[in-house]
Amino acid sequence: MLDSFYIDLAVNEAWKYWGLTYPNPPVGGLLLDRSGKIVSISAHQRAGSPHSEVLLFQNAFWKLTKDREILNLSDSQDIHNFLYENHKGIFKDFTLYTTLEPCNHFGKTPPCSLLIRNLSIKRVVVGTLDTNPTASGGVQYLQSSGIEVDILNSPKAKYLVEPFEKWSKGRFIFFKYAQRLDGSIDGGTISSLESRKYIHSIRDRIDLMVIGGETVRTDRPTLDSRLVGGSAPDILIYSRYREFDKTIPLFSVPDRNVYIDSSLEKIENYRFIMVEGGYNLLQAILEYIDWVMVIISPTLSTSSTIHNLNIQFQIIHHLQIGEDIILWLRKKSPSTN
Amino acid sequence: MLDSFYIDLAVNEAWKYWGLTYPNPPVGGLLLDRSGKIVSISAHQRAGSPHSEVLLFQNAFWKLTKDREILNLSDSQDIHNFLYENHKGIFKDFTLYTTLEPCNHFGKTPPCSLLIRNLSIKRVVVGTLDTNPTASGGVQYLQSSGIEVDILNSPKAKYLVEPFEKWSKGRFIFFKYAQRLDGSIDGGTISSLESRKYIHSIRDRIDLMVIGGETVRTDRPTLDSRLVGGSAPDILIYSRYREFDKTIPLFSVPDRNVYIDSSLEKIENYRFIMVEGGYNLLQAILEYIDWVMVIISPTLSTSSTIHNLNIQFQIIHHLQIGEDIILWLRKKSPSTN
Repeated sequence: MLDSFYIDLAVNEAWKYWGLTYPNPPVGGLLLDRSGKIVSISAHQRAGSPHSEVLLFQNAFWKLTKDREILNLSDSQDIHNFLYENHKGIFKDFTLYTTLEPCNHFGKTPPCSLLIRNLSIKRVVVGTLDTNPTASGGVQYLQSSGIEVDILNSPKAKYLVEPFEKWSKGRFIFFKYAQRLDGSIDGGTISSLESRKYIHSIRDRIDLMVIGGETVRTDRPTLDSRLVGGSAPDILIYSRYREFDKTIPLFSVPDRNVYIDSSLEKIENYRFIMVEGGYNLLQAILEYIDWVMVIISPTLSTSSTIHNLNIQFQIIHHLQIGEDIILWLRKKSPSTN
Repeated sequence: MLDSFYIDLAVNEAWKYWGLTYPNPPVGGLLLDRSGKIVSISAHQRAGSPHSEVLLFQNAFWKLTKDREILNLSDSQDIHNFLYENHKGIFKDFTLYTTLEPCNHFGKTPPCSLLIRNLSIKRVVVGTLDTNPTASGGVQYLQSSGIEVDILNSPKAKYLVEPFEKWSKGRFIFFKYAQRLDGSIDGGTISSLESRKYIHSIRDRIDLMVIGGETVRTDRPTLDSRLVGGSAPDILIYSRYREFDKTIPLFSVPDRNVYIDSSLEKIENYRFIMVEGGYNLLQAILEYIDWVMVIISPTLSTSSTIHNLNIQFQIIHHLQIGEDIILWLRKKSPSTN
């Protein structure tokens, strides 16, 4: 099969953890043994936890040796050390696919480039290069170690890291909403429990959540991540009116800042920002939005929603989650009227 | 990797030709060489043309031998014969994944079960059994030939052939509509050229198309498959009023029957039926509908559409096509009000 086939499988795996790896990029990987058989597929799941490549080798070591001991390790350095001591050349001449250039620096975890070299991988196929100067240089290091490297410049791999490139240099802002198939967004809970859990795990990772004043007054939300036992993001209530009933639950969540502002100045202090709202809020802040994430519940409802937007999006990715489907969209040629 | 991983890849490939294989089932396949490397992935594309298994071996033969001669063959019997004469045991001990039990009878093409046996495949993994008595028996034949067979009973593989099972025993009726992200369905062409080509290739295969009288009067459509140079289906205009301007293009398409009827009796004479329309028509004939296919254009528009439906669907499959996404839906707990 073509390299793009394997990279696409790795890209799809990485999307399952989109948003959850912040401030790291989402990265997926796939390992072929020397005869070309897929041994493992993995993705980076959370900053501070092992990189995709480390999980690939951890999983592959277990599969190839049946030795479960490595599965007990969760610290990246421990897995590196275990592999160095125990690999005995089993990965020699394997091919590694990774959606992003392997890291080349000691951050929260040791560099993947070193691990790849030490395990005698023959060929590394990279979806797209890392534009972050701190972590990049992996390809150069691998090549100078005699490893064959192919860089695919895959558009799908590039889309995957677009948010990372934005939050690394400034900020990434995405608008999230849930709708039914017919576009209606009112009338109570729309998305399935599994979708809501995913959104809560994203709330656990973002820096700031922006929400409209009307939603706060009407829904009296908590805006935490209780479904996954995570932390609650800071909140910016984007509203012309500054008076809110302070018994609304979101004001009582500990360890969070809540701002009420008629401007978006506060976003300057944050890097990974989710806006939750409806069509009105989308229209109001469209120019600030990098991506839109829509959760579509496959239902029709007599609830009706009217909006005043004309936007063409481009589909970046789609994924079924529970009973719903998630679309990641990028503005194509925005215009409001 | 697990068997389900490979079957899912084959299922996804088969979906690309959904509806186009009628009256055959959609079938996808994947071939692993004796070391477990993926050699080829394929899907049945059209009744009368080679089955998925034959395309798999044709493609794999070329990849393994670099002999392009086999690629010049398009007739299934010719490919069978070529493989018998030239395979020289290259497929010995390979593993074949197929979403549906291999056929075991001489129909328009020779039986795949015979080909699989003659090429000395070691193991066959079947997504789901064929419930059609004419073609079934493949698994039994393979097992009696000493081939290892595993049957996964994969839900995804079962969904794929649900329409086939219905049209084999009576009829399969699906409702197709195109919408924008916000549910709006009026205001001119909605889906991208690639989506419309796909719909035209489905129109080329179906027996009957049902459409509402209002759409005929308003849109004055042709309802043929000109974008793919195919044939035009028979038309049932479902309408209380029998008077139509006969200069509307659909009436002038040669080799087609056009019925105008206030009942759906005519569907009794057809097996693969597509209904194209909007929310009103969906509501009117919901009880007859097996599946709904929605093409979603990632756009928001100030066009508004009001409907009077409350339906919960289950997502059967989703696929990006051109700039749009297609959802295949099944009613979950239908109720209209």
